[in-house]
Amino acid sequence: MDVKEQRVALVIGAGDSTGGAIAKRFAAEGMVACVTRRSADKLQPLVDSIRDAGGMAYAFGTDARKEEEVVALIDKIESEIGPIDVLVFNIGANVPSSILEETARKYFKIWEMACFAGFLNAREVAKRMVQRQRGTILFTGATAGLRGKENYAAFAGAKHALRALAQSMARELGPKNIHVAHIVVDGAIDTDFIRTNFPDRYALKDQDGILNPEHIAQNYWYLHSQPRDAWTFELDLRPWTETW
Amino acid sequence: MDVKEQRVALVIGAGDSTGGAIAKRFAAEGMVACVTRRSADKLQPLVDSIRDAGGMAYAFGTDARKEEEVVALIDKIESEIGPIDVLVFNIGANVPSSILEETARKYFKIWEMACFAGFLNAREVAKRMVQRQRGTILFTGATAGLRGKENYAAFAGAKHALRALAQSMARELGPKNIHVAHIVVDGAIDTDFIRTNFPDRYALKDQDGILNPEHIAQNYWYLHSQPRDAWTFELDLRPWTETW
Amino acid sequence: MDVKEQRVALVIGAGDSTGGAIAKRFAAEGMVACVTRRSADKLQPLVDSIRDAGGMAYAFGTDARKEEEVVALIDKIESEIGPIDVLVFNIGANVPSSILEETARKYFKIWEMACFAGFLNAREVAKRMVQRQRGTILFTGATAGLRGKENYAAFAGAKHALRALAQSMARELGPKNIHVAHIVVDGAIDTDFIRTNFPDRYALKDQDGILNPEHIAQNYWYLHSQPRDAWTFELDLRPWTETW
Amino acid sequence: MDVKEQRVALVIGAGDSTGGAIAKRFAAEGMVACVTRRSADKLQPLVDSIRDAGGMAYAFGTDARKEEEVVALIDKIESEIGPIDVLVFNIGANVPSSILEETARKYFKIWEMACFAGFLNAREVAKRMVQRQRGTILFTGATAGLRGKENYAAFAGAKHALRALAQSMARELGPKNIHVAHIVVDGAIDTDFIRTNFPDRYALKDQDGILNPEHIAQNYWYLHSQPRDAWTFELDLRPWTETW
Repeated sequence: MDVKEQRVALVIGAGDSTGGAIAKRFAAEGMVACVTRRSADKLQPLVDSIRDAGGMAYAFGTDARKEEEVVALIDKIESEIGPIDVLVFNIGANVPSSILEETARKYFKIWEMACFAGFLNAREVAKRMVQRQRGTILFTGATAGLRGKENYAAFAGAKHALRALAQSMARELGPKNIHVAHIVVDGAIDTDFIRTNFPDRYALKDQDGILNPEHIAQNYWYLHSQPRDAWTFELDLRPWTETW
Repeated sequence: MDVKEQRVALVIGAGDSTGGAIAKRFAAEGMVACVTRRSADKLQPLVDSIRDAGGMAYAFGTDARKEEEVVALIDKIESEIGPIDVLVFNIGANVPSSILEETARKYFKIWEMACFAGFLNAREVAKRMVQRQRGTILFTGATAGLRGKENYAAFAGAKHALRALAQSMARELGPKNIHVAHIVVDGAIDTDFIRTNFPDRYALKDQDGILNPEHIAQNYWYLHSQPRDAWTFELDLRPWTETW
Repeated sequence: MDVKEQRVALVIGAGDSTGGAIAKRFAAEGMVACVTRRSADKLQPLVDSIRDAGGMAYAFGTDARKEEEVVALIDKIESEIGPIDVLVFNIGANVPSSILEETARKYFKIWEMACFAGFLNAREVAKRMVQRQRGTILFTGATAGLRGKENYAAFAGAKHALRALAQSMARELGPKNIHVAHIVVDGAIDTDFIRTNFPDRYALKDQDGILNPEHIAQNYWYLHSQPRDAWTFELDLRPWTETW
Repeated sequence: MDVKEQRVALVIGAGDSTGGAIAKRFAAEGMVACVTRRSADKLQPLVDSIRDAGGMAYAFGTDARKEEEVVALIDKIESEIGPIDVLVFNIGANVPSSILEETARKYFKIWEMACFAGFLNAREVAKRMVQRQRGTILFTGATAGLRGKENYAAFAGAKHALRALAQSMARELGPKNIHVAHIVVDGAIDTDFIRTNFPDRYALKDQDGILNPEHIAQNYWYLHSQPRDAWTFELDLRPWTETW
């Protein structure tokens, strides 16, 4: 691989349909999609799909919670593929539990995946972006990042912390021409998981009652393409039928 | 005028550059722009500009705070021009004052212009939209709608109330397929007012430090074009240099 | 009446059990309770009750939405009774309606009662307080002041605007030694209205599931008595059983 | 030690003046103050002070971030001293840094101290409280828990997550008669640290411009003593001169 002129969109957590759709969208716009999840093998269908459509894509098996792996990954992409112009952090970890039964291990892991990994990747990419004085960093949030509720102490905590990270970075890096934004996705998404486990919910698809990953992805591209005199920091996405 | 097939975008408060840019944007997409301010004469340049570009536009002199005028206007547009598919409420009224010197008259007028007029127009248009089970209602908000500050009791009050209107309508009308959204515009806009009164601020234009009305308008169109499985309720817009 | 040394607690909207309980509480602490509602006659039992308990109280029939009446009332109290050290604004106006059926008249009246009257009274009292460099202004808020919901556009708008008033005043007047605070009361209160109209809700009283007006009042006194190095701006009150 | 009738107030993080003042306040009301920090030796002056005043106090050297230590501590207190009726979590960790220079180690440690330790202690105490169907859990928060800002990604993240924990616990445990509340302390506190490092700020003490720990403590006691029909979930505390 040579260092290309092409600019890279790095999607951390491309294991679900949302991350995959985002990668496809940025690739369709001519960017090189670099996608990660713990096991690279599972990313092959996504990479194939992007390449079949004429796009560029690379898959990386990496543990987004391990600093050395994150640093190595970003070094490798920057030196071998191209400058990272967009970072999308898209790892979730929504496992409810009564606070009385929440284990320390699970509470920690949810934060580690949904927040700490976001910090590691965003900091590491931001270091490069500030040198180039350009770039976009997008965090996938949730309504749980706006307020806590029963049985969601761990997930709400991680998502609150992620939103605080996004806000803090936006204020520090905005004046350095880095666009940091936080997308609150609220509602069921059209995924295998929902189809299998929540068939009643999935049936709402016929009336557009669950989120289409391609439509979510469109908003990520839109944020990246905003001119810098009118940047959006936060945007929510929910089906028309959603109450909130 | 015959009742057209073309759908109408009604912009209340098209007197400033933002409202004008929004009207042009919707007209450029093929909608009929109906624009209002108190004196229709002042809207002629905007209407001419839209028509010169091949678009359709009509100007109306109307007091958006008077229920009878609002009802008559909307009846007239619906019967003579076409169904209102988009309503944009864009009247501001940002006049700071110490609470100790705020007059009852000014406190009332700021609310009447920036909130009550929004209620009147939105309610009246919503009545038609629910019958057709489609439509988009967009409110121009401000950071003052998110928190109060010294010298802004009146403006913050009106903008808070407008946001409460937007939220309440979004929750009631969303499930009726009416997309209600609130846009928080934070920062100086490229207007004659800013150029004349805040030249230092205006000088930031060279580095994209003030909002371009066309870029604001782009976001209004974007919200209208969102598929209904992924609607945004609230979006903020600010220059990259803005602190908040 | 002579101008007393005693300091006055003025309660606007003492017609309900909460306002009455607040007046009693401040009177029990040795302040002169001045209580208002539209008809002074209906306040006589409250005044009698305070006097029977050894306290000082005066009733005033006044329309809190009329600037001249507000100015006259406050002039009269300040010249004939004593300096107003505490203002409590306690007028509510919770009348739900679909946005499609909301009348301009009702939308206006709810704002006029629940917000505009608050502005008039608070501004007028604040003018005196800043001269003395002391005083406390307390606004009764509601969860509707924090977010809108279906059928509550008018009430949520008024309460949002009232909260914006409280915030704006707090920031301007805090450094002048005027303590401005906003109390969010969330839940049914032990009133005749609830007992008569919502008997199921009222039955929760046995398990402390509805708010006791005396307990609400205690918090108003508490806020007034906070030393100025540790002032609270906002406090919420809800029964232990309340979900929110 | 016998298992006493006296109820315990456990203060985690009594190393600073705020935690110490809170412990004294609860002891002055007749509760047994159990205070912790990493080194028990440093708590001896606090324990002596409480005992000299006729109160009961015990010090424990414990690492609040270690689950086994937390479980052992709470078991020991419950079996040897008395039922924990109040838990105060008061560990802060405010160390600012540019996001570009934030280390993974520091980011983690700030969360571990200011949030994870709060989870461990609160969960463990809550398990006992729900069996007794009574208790109060109080978290010391900060303005950083409400919004992020430049250089505060780590601290804001931890405090956001702590607030999410407080909200989630309040909603789950409120209906079980456990009062969970979050106190936002905003401003400099009268401590040795401020006196030594920020003498200009400390000089504001003469005009009540910094928070007195005893006044902060008073609010913790107040929250604990609220009757359950009118509980406060969140309360902010700031000097009258503070802008926010």
